[in-house]
Amino acid sequence: MAVVLGANQYGKAEIRLLHVVRDSAGHRIADLNVSVTLSGELAATYLSGDNSAVLTTDAQKNTVFAFAKEHGVGEIEDFALLLARHFVGSLEAVSFARVTVEQYPWERLGHHTFARSGREVRTATVSSTGADCWVVSGVRGLTLLNSTGSEFRGFARDRYTTLTETSDRILATAVEARWRHASPASASGGWAESYSAARDLLVRAFAETYSHSLQQTLFAMGERVLRHRPEIAEIRLSLPNKHHFEVDMSPFGLDNPGEVFYAADRPFGLIEGTVSRDDAPEPGKAW
Amino acid sequence: MAVVLGANQYGKAEIRLLHVVRDSAGHRIADLNVSVTLSGELAATYLSGDNSAVLTTDAQKNTVFAFAKEHGVGEIEDFALLLARHFVGSLEAVSFARVTVEQYPWERLGHHTFARSGREVRTATVSSTGADCWVVSGVRGLTLLNSTGSEFRGFARDRYTTLTETSDRILATAVEARWRHASPASASGGWAESYSAARDLLVRAFAETYSHSLQQTLFAMGERVLRHRPEIAEIRLSLPNKHHFEVDMSPFGLDNPGEVFYAADRPFGLIEGTVSRDDAPEPGKAW
Amino acid sequence: MAVVLGANQYGKAEIRLLHVVRDSAGHRIADLNVSVTLSGELAATYLSGDNSAVLTTDAQKNTVFAFAKEHGVGEIEDFALLLARHFVGSLEAVSFARVTVEQYPWERLGHHTFARSGREVRTATVSSTGADCWVVSGVRGLTLLNSTGSEFRGFARDRYTTLTETSDRILATAVEARWRHASPASASGGWAESYSAARDLLVRAFAETYSHSLQQTLFAMGERVLRHRPEIAEIRLSLPNKHHFEVDMSPFGLDNPGEVFYAADRPFGLIEGTVSRDDAPEPGKAW
Amino acid sequence: MAVVLGANQYGKAEIRLLHVVRDSAGHRIADLNVSVTLSGELAATYLSGDNSAVLTTDAQKNTVFAFAKEHGVGEIEDFALLLARHFVGSLEAVSFARVTVEQYPWERLGHHTFARSGREVRTATVSSTGADCWVVSGVRGLTLLNSTGSEFRGFARDRYTTLTETSDRILATAVEARWRHASPASASGGWAESYSAARDLLVRAFAETYSHSLQQTLFAMGERVLRHRPEIAEIRLSLPNKHHFEVDMSPFGLDNPGEVFYAADRPFGLIEGTVSRDDAPEPGKAW
Repeated sequence: MAVVLGANQYGKAEIRLLHVVRDSAGHRIADLNVSVTLSGELAATYLSGDNSAVLTTDAQKNTVFAFAKEHGVGEIEDFALLLARHFVGSLEAVSFARVTVEQYPWERLGHHTFARSGREVRTATVSSTGADCWVVSGVRGLTLLNSTGSEFRGFARDRYTTLTETSDRILATAVEARWRHASPASASGGWAESYSAARDLLVRAFAETYSHSLQQTLFAMGERVLRHRPEIAEIRLSLPNKHHFEVDMSPFGLDNPGEVFYAADRPFGLIEGTVSRDDAPEPGKAW
Repeated sequence: MAVVLGANQYGKAEIRLLHVVRDSAGHRIADLNVSVTLSGELAATYLSGDNSAVLTTDAQKNTVFAFAKEHGVGEIEDFALLLARHFVGSLEAVSFARVTVEQYPWERLGHHTFARSGREVRTATVSSTGADCWVVSGVRGLTLLNSTGSEFRGFARDRYTTLTETSDRILATAVEARWRHASPASASGGWAESYSAARDLLVRAFAETYSHSLQQTLFAMGERVLRHRPEIAEIRLSLPNKHHFEVDMSPFGLDNPGEVFYAADRPFGLIEGTVSRDDAPEPGKAW
Repeated sequence: MAVVLGANQYGKAEIRLLHVVRDSAGHRIADLNVSVTLSGELAATYLSGDNSAVLTTDAQKNTVFAFAKEHGVGEIEDFALLLARHFVGSLEAVSFARVTVEQYPWERLGHHTFARSGREVRTATVSSTGADCWVVSGVRGLTLLNSTGSEFRGFARDRYTTLTETSDRILATAVEARWRHASPASASGGWAESYSAARDLLVRAFAETYSHSLQQTLFAMGERVLRHRPEIAEIRLSLPNKHHFEVDMSPFGLDNPGEVFYAADRPFGLIEGTVSRDDAPEPGKAW
Repeated sequence: MAVVLGANQYGKAEIRLLHVVRDSAGHRIADLNVSVTLSGELAATYLSGDNSAVLTTDAQKNTVFAFAKEHGVGEIEDFALLLARHFVGSLEAVSFARVTVEQYPWERLGHHTFARSGREVRTATVSSTGADCWVVSGVRGLTLLNSTGSEFRGFARDRYTTLTETSDRILATAVEARWRHASPASASGGWAESYSAARDLLVRAFAETYSHSLQQTLFAMGERVLRHRPEIAEIRLSLPNKHHFEVDMSPFGLDNPGEVFYAADRPFGLIEGTVSRDDAPEPGKAW
């Protein structure tokens, strides 16, 4: 029996970067959280502590800052593409790079004043082997709620099932979605428009779907995006069911027909699924 | 020497309540986090475990839910007033009640669809002795940033001072502000308008003040509110200085004139101050 | 009407410092989180942006690091005393300083290897006017649980009270306690022993008190400390009631006599109280 | 082009359960966080909202509580095995179940008094197809630090590399490790011993390895476990590099040879790798 090194990767996580564009009286800002992971012929450092093929995580951090200065940030998919391709070429040992960028939204309030707005975060992950690249865009922290238009009935019952069927419940979730672009150039020049459209399609499908289950809503959200956005090949959704329980007020002699709810923290349901085109290109190393 | 019980209070914290108003096709929701603390002649439970004067924290929770049903939530100041006055009268032993409400903002997207929006939270704290009430409104998590218009110079220097003077820096903070109303009825019927105006005055003062120090900005923000809102007697601000450090790119042969910054987590500066009218009524038990 | 500046303070928060003592083969480490606040004749920076009396928060941070090097850390009360006294004397405008130190516990595993152990954090806050000093020691995150020996009965009942009386419940809390020393020298040379004894007295009182209410347990814990530690004048306790609800298994045809509980997050009870000697010296500016 | 449902799963997350064993004067407790995910022939609920094959997540939660009552918790691997096998058989549509359990450590202080101790959490994940089962045990939050015995030199340099080589640095990490057992019965009857041994081997390898890189330490930790524990086939480690930067005190005229460090939050290095036997059985659906 020998002990062997298997899959491995390393990098710098959570590089917090603010980029200010001062090219006019009205500044623009980009507030990012960038993470880098590299892999390749890096066994030597694991097995013998030979670091000669190791690009330090400190240099990775410096590169992220320097590229923001040299190339600007622009759309986060473009910034991640630039970085991922650079890292693969930077050292012979590095044959794969993945760069993940989160962008926090700010609202402009004046020429140079901004308020952090919203809780949803735009995300992009680019994976590169040098020859090939894959772009995954996404959103997290998009918290949505329907105060009606949701039921949950007809489910299976076993010994431990006590849940009452309901024809009108609160449906609330914090959307985490990531969608794979058909090609790294599919939305080139239009990443912002593509993101904005996909985000809105998710929201609209959530709002417009009469829900028999959160699973059904999940599929409807994914399908809506794919039907309208040809540049997107596949979407993965993770939807926590943020339970809101109707408070039983009968002990106080009160009726409570869907008015006052207790918002629970834990446990929570968690529904996850992938929706894709049947002719989607292979995912390769996108995920 | 005897060991004695001093100041004490108890209550239920973080009651998470969603209230849905269904009186028209367009629902309205209120998403609240309510905390209650009571005090009074409650020494018996501490000293001998005699609970006969104790209103259980479970009943406090029930009361919050039941009042939402019976009276609606409306403006959080009104809801807290109703609850605080109720609790003081509920049992003879309870001579003081404080009710704190946080309201999370949601944006309407459809008749019954909502997205949680923004990170700022509206707050209200009502303190009551039965005869007297004090109302404090506020905001927290209002994250603001000026990308220019801020300098920091002319400060004292001691042996451990190494900071370079700057005539142009990022100024960023997450505003936590609480303001005391001159009377519990000062904005009655107009709590929402008062809150909205105060919040906007804080933002405008932050945006419009050329800043020599975050302290100066703090005072300007408080002063702006008091000059325009006669119903507000005093405001307390807590402003973390969310440092953004210019990245030194000289090792890579790059210049970086205020473009790329590293957003630091810790440590952070923390500036706190009270601004009030010189003729403000006594605060009593407001805080 | 004039708008005036009231109480104000500023400083650097959460300076994360690791100190390594290498004076023998067996290293020792201290892992601290230090926060500084200063106040005094500092109105000029608020009112006009004149920073000439401002000791920068950056210099405060440097001072904390430099003092760790020059004087070592030792007991955190001593380190905070040294810093607080220094800051009051550092600039004429600074008439009051408060230094709070949190210490994270590590367990030694070898000559120079350590594992972070436990969740409880030791705390110290020193307040100084130069002439006078006050020392408050404490603990937070000390999570305790009694699986029996706790009842809750005989409480008041109003319209909204539905809680069932219980003669056997789980009692769990995360102790946050802070105790004021009778004088800044009361435990001088013995801060570690004083802390350790107070912490153990809190735990023993929690374990040995048959509890009729968490309030009663709170007083018992405070009293126990004061009876045994003459150097401590007053103790303030904040005890969340971490509810564990017995799961009703009757729908599955099972009995559940105090065996399986659901650990709830929110809401939670919160019991707070001060216990002191009747002959305790005045607290001055300790809190 | 058709839009199709791909991989999907659902379940209840973070069921917080306290189990008390009262079979002697000395109680024992188990404090768990259990998450369940199921998959199988569940497309109907996604595609048409037909819930007839859906075991509700509420019933999953009930099952976890009921099984704790009926079978006790015991070792978390056994508890997860019991649950996973049950869920696969519970409904015809469910062909795969994964149960993850986290156990929080408590230290006994008396017959029925406990203190939550340590920050490391023991974990177990069992995956089951009914016919086959895979057991993965693990630990997270095991924070370790070497104050010497770590260097980082001889690394590659590119245009953006500015890091200075060091022959003596702090090495600190929060170990997250998961190890796959060779068979679901490999440590049957001895899960506790197996966990404890693996945990100690990780710690000892961290302590005893003179480190040229965190990668090298990672491999040494994994190898140590595999060399001594034949029941373990593979181990996956995720090691954040919790940076501690030596404070430059030259501006204050002080030398600081490895004594005072600033503990940084972000960014951090992140080293991840798999170590396995060359004759390890296939992982199947373990991960």
